[in-house]
Amino acid sequence: MRLAVLGLGAMGAPIARNLVHAGFDVAVWNRTAERAREVPGARAARSPAAACEGVDVALTMLADDAAVEQVIFGRDGVLGALPRGSCHVGMSTISTALSRRLADAHAQAGQGFVAAPVFGRPEAAAARLLWIVAGGARADLDRCEPVFAAIGQGTFRFADAPRASLAKLLGNFLIAANVEILGEALVAAEKAGLEPARLLEVLTRTLFGSPVVERYGRLVADTAFEPAGFRLSLGLKDVELALRAADELGAPLPVAALLRERFLAALAAGREHYDWAGIASVIREDAGLPPVRSRTP
Amino acid sequence: MRLAVLGLGAMGAPIARNLVHAGFDVAVWNRTAERAREVPGARAARSPAAACEGVDVALTMLADDAAVEQVIFGRDGVLGALPRGSCHVGMSTISTALSRRLADAHAQAGQGFVAAPVFGRPEAAAARLLWIVAGGARADLDRCEPVFAAIGQGTFRFADAPRASLAKLLGNFLIAANVEILGEALVAAEKAGLEPARLLEVLTRTLFGSPVVERYGRLVADTAFEPAGFRLSLGLKDVELALRAADELGAPLPVAALLRERFLAALAAGREHYDWAGIASVIREDAGLPPVRSRTP
Amino acid sequence: MRLAVLGLGAMGAPIARNLVHAGFDVAVWNRTAERAREVPGARAARSPAAACEGVDVALTMLADDAAVEQVIFGRDGVLGALPRGSCHVGMSTISTALSRRLADAHAQAGQGFVAAPVFGRPEAAAARLLWIVAGGARADLDRCEPVFAAIGQGTFRFADAPRASLAKLLGNFLIAANVEILGEALVAAEKAGLEPARLLEVLTRTLFGSPVVERYGRLVADTAFEPAGFRLSLGLKDVELALRAADELGAPLPVAALLRERFLAALAAGREHYDWAGIASVIREDAGLPPVRSRTP
Amino acid sequence: MRLAVLGLGAMGAPIARNLVHAGFDVAVWNRTAERAREVPGARAARSPAAACEGVDVALTMLADDAAVEQVIFGRDGVLGALPRGSCHVGMSTISTALSRRLADAHAQAGQGFVAAPVFGRPEAAAARLLWIVAGGARADLDRCEPVFAAIGQGTFRFADAPRASLAKLLGNFLIAANVEILGEALVAAEKAGLEPARLLEVLTRTLFGSPVVERYGRLVADTAFEPAGFRLSLGLKDVELALRAADELGAPLPVAALLRERFLAALAAGREHYDWAGIASVIREDAGLPPVRSRTP
Repeated sequence: MRLAVLGLGAMGAPIARNLVHAGFDVAVWNRTAERAREVPGARAARSPAAACEGVDVALTMLADDAAVEQVIFGRDGVLGALPRGSCHVGMSTISTALSRRLADAHAQAGQGFVAAPVFGRPEAAAARLLWIVAGGARADLDRCEPVFAAIGQGTFRFADAPRASLAKLLGNFLIAANVEILGEALVAAEKAGLEPARLLEVLTRTLFGSPVVERYGRLVADTAFEPAGFRLSLGLKDVELALRAADELGAPLPVAALLRERFLAALAAGREHYDWAGIASVIREDAGLPPVRSRTP
Repeated sequence: MRLAVLGLGAMGAPIARNLVHAGFDVAVWNRTAERAREVPGARAARSPAAACEGVDVALTMLADDAAVEQVIFGRDGVLGALPRGSCHVGMSTISTALSRRLADAHAQAGQGFVAAPVFGRPEAAAARLLWIVAGGARADLDRCEPVFAAIGQGTFRFADAPRASLAKLLGNFLIAANVEILGEALVAAEKAGLEPARLLEVLTRTLFGSPVVERYGRLVADTAFEPAGFRLSLGLKDVELALRAADELGAPLPVAALLRERFLAALAAGREHYDWAGIASVIREDAGLPPVRSRTP
Repeated sequence: MRLAVLGLGAMGAPIARNLVHAGFDVAVWNRTAERAREVPGARAARSPAAACEGVDVALTMLADDAAVEQVIFGRDGVLGALPRGSCHVGMSTISTALSRRLADAHAQAGQGFVAAPVFGRPEAAAARLLWIVAGGARADLDRCEPVFAAIGQGTFRFADAPRASLAKLLGNFLIAANVEILGEALVAAEKAGLEPARLLEVLTRTLFGSPVVERYGRLVADTAFEPAGFRLSLGLKDVELALRAADELGAPLPVAALLRERFLAALAAGREHYDWAGIASVIREDAGLPPVRSRTP
Repeated sequence: MRLAVLGLGAMGAPIARNLVHAGFDVAVWNRTAERAREVPGARAARSPAAACEGVDVALTMLADDAAVEQVIFGRDGVLGALPRGSCHVGMSTISTALSRRLADAHAQAGQGFVAAPVFGRPEAAAARLLWIVAGGARADLDRCEPVFAAIGQGTFRFADAPRASLAKLLGNFLIAANVEILGEALVAAEKAGLEPARLLEVLTRTLFGSPVVERYGRLVADTAFEPAGFRLSLGLKDVELALRAADELGAPLPVAALLRERFLAALAAGREHYDWAGIASVIREDAGLPPVRSRTP
């Protein structure tokens, strides 16, 4: 099976390495070409179109809607180069509107489209522990199974691409919402002289223990907002995509609206380099605490 | 060890039964006396004071601040009857202000006070699966260990009573906040034609799985708001206690403020008998869905 | 007509002076006795009860519910001293619950009760420009007309005391809400390099011009938060009374809930001495601006 | 002076009529051509480009960003047809981003651009009572003065187009925010048995009286949401433009975020034909009241 991987960022590079390691024939392309060196065993292509020549499946893992539009619909893009009967697997977190547009455009070109955004950070990508949320035609999903098996620990299937994209956006909304509610609770605890890490322990060992609560609760309790696993500015992007999807659906998301204001306040304070758990820094300041706890030496 | 249990509601009765079963000498009292029959093997007392005669530990499990104040400070109350050197274990979810006042009043009377609110519903109480959040003097906490062991699966210790009460209030806030954010996400999914139970499955099997998400997510996905495990009106009370504690601490809780409005809207619609997961009925209506999904036969 | 004025703070003192000036026989009492000197021509009484001896109308202008309860129901309080057939005019901004309780207690004592909170700051009180929101029995309202005429520019009548108290609370909520929405708009303008005072001019000269917008808009545009005309901590009190009233009524006030969080954040930052327009300082910080604009010399 | 007016909707038509009446030579164009009949004395053109031939000033009054983009940048659009040295006056309420793009594009084409959105409903347009918020180069603003004098009661000048567009968006945000806060207060009053119209009278006659409060307060108090003066769906558009502008500026607008959820809830309930004051229908339902008061015969 011949594959192309377009986009070799923090997520795309380990995914491509795992695909090479699983024995696939892999062509890669990245906007800044030198990153291709990070995937030994793969062929570096000069353009998205060149990477797609003769492939069965082209995977994209790009930053946002604009990057995806450029790589698919732009000059030397995927749409014109992907063989009829082959399939584009879009792993980026994109708007439901673009997901729908991609499904339509690929169908018209006789190509398949699977939206396959993932849950998991770069470490999970490296360890083949991603969760894949895949939406598309059943035949395309079936065909992609060996690809998904090489990069993740499980796949959830949805009936079409926009619904998979929505599931991912709602998942990211829930991660940010967990940061918010944990932030509010742990900051109130801290003001009461109740050690946040102690409250977090109670929470995780009783009713609240989950990977999200354990990971992000710890970041919040320790105010460990740097270095970023997932940057605050990207978090805002995803919350705004969730709001936009909710807008189209006619479904209010008031906590997402509140989160949006938190992200804006954090960015206005110059914290775009923080992890998105860093919205808790604004919660801290609203409670009269410094944005980050000072550490005693 | 001689015990008194004051308050034999949905939580107090199974706790008292477990204490009898564990071999303790148990006196019981309830505002409506006939409920004493639900605890075979215990002595029914005529008043809180009568129940407390000669006991080592008196446990209270009552509805709210007003009920606790009445039973402790009122006529024939606990404060005047509890032997010096014995200990009051308050298991009700109460304000941090009352928790502080109880600690002070009992200390002045030569009695101990442990705030010991619990996480867990009546089924958990019956199955001895409660989580106990206990705050007080170390000696009092030590002395209560056999009591806690007979009713729960684990105890978390805090340095004083108000902090244990706060931890419980913040926990209840987090449960309600989970209902809110799950409600927003599952309702948006439903409007997109994405089966809520399916999205919930993705959430619980990936990053979000926790007892709270599994239990309340299911209630929300199924709109199974009746019968109530924990009534909506009690949920409002606890959210308001959390807001009041946050107020004293100078720590804003904007999601709690939003929750308060949800509870008020649900109550204004006449849903005081719903489970507190039923605030999702208001989220549904805001999205143009009926408060409860209609079931096809 | 013989009057008593209880409470000689920033509002009570000018009101008492105007009543003396209008020719009434006025007794005054204040918790700190020396303030009686600020009302030349009035008799200083030793206690609320002493001030009420033989009066036709007793006016109270006190800080909050607790102060009113103390002065009315406490030792040497108004309730026991006011002659049958005379009337208590409560001008403080109090909870609807206390307003109801006062109406009941005075009725039982054969006394009248009029809730008569006012709109207007100390300058307006001095200039007899208060707006009086008066609720009570028609006969009591009629009897108080000459009193109101001596201190205000107009009176609005309501059918009972709790409704007058509610109208005042909702009015104060609307003032704070105007600060919030003006704050959001003027801060966004400032970030766009659009002079806030210029936008305010557009607003006040077109659709938005009102005394509230002109006064508070200017405080916000100039970040003139000190000295306080009405202290931020008092503003929080009133917003919380509005929330409590709304709670009893089953009517959500989400903007009031948001305001509460703003006040808490401002207080957590140590700004209790700011004017309540100073909640805009938190809006500014959320936008990455300093709490107060620096002035160039 | 030769003018073109593009867009003859509820606002554009009366504006064009006033310009004809003031003696200008006016060409008109509308997407649905028959509306040109509503402006007797004007020449009907076949396309935006045709209308712009030889004009000094071209005014556009269109529904949204998309319509403006189509008319300016599309085939037979304004940009290619407007004579060098002439000026485009954009009166639509558009995004700050489009306002900036228009300023740049027209400058590059040797044309002037003035953003000149207005405050006022169709009645105000007919009565020449619009308030004009105009931003652009001083020479262009000067040149447009006689045009503005023919259609409005006053003009406010801003240094560039995006700032004028922002001022208008913030103004519309403030109108919607006034509906929200009045709605919350009047609904709480109604639940207390306090006639909303009575409370509104108190508000308008004391500190709060302004055209916005009087007009929208009345619509809310009477639940007179139909027919729409300005449709709810257009209100959502403007609130979202304000949020988007705030996003670019890094200035949170939490009340706008709350408003957005209100609009979505109203639309989800099928009320797109309501006046935007109709967001109060959702506030009513959250308080357990019917969306519209029933009238007694």
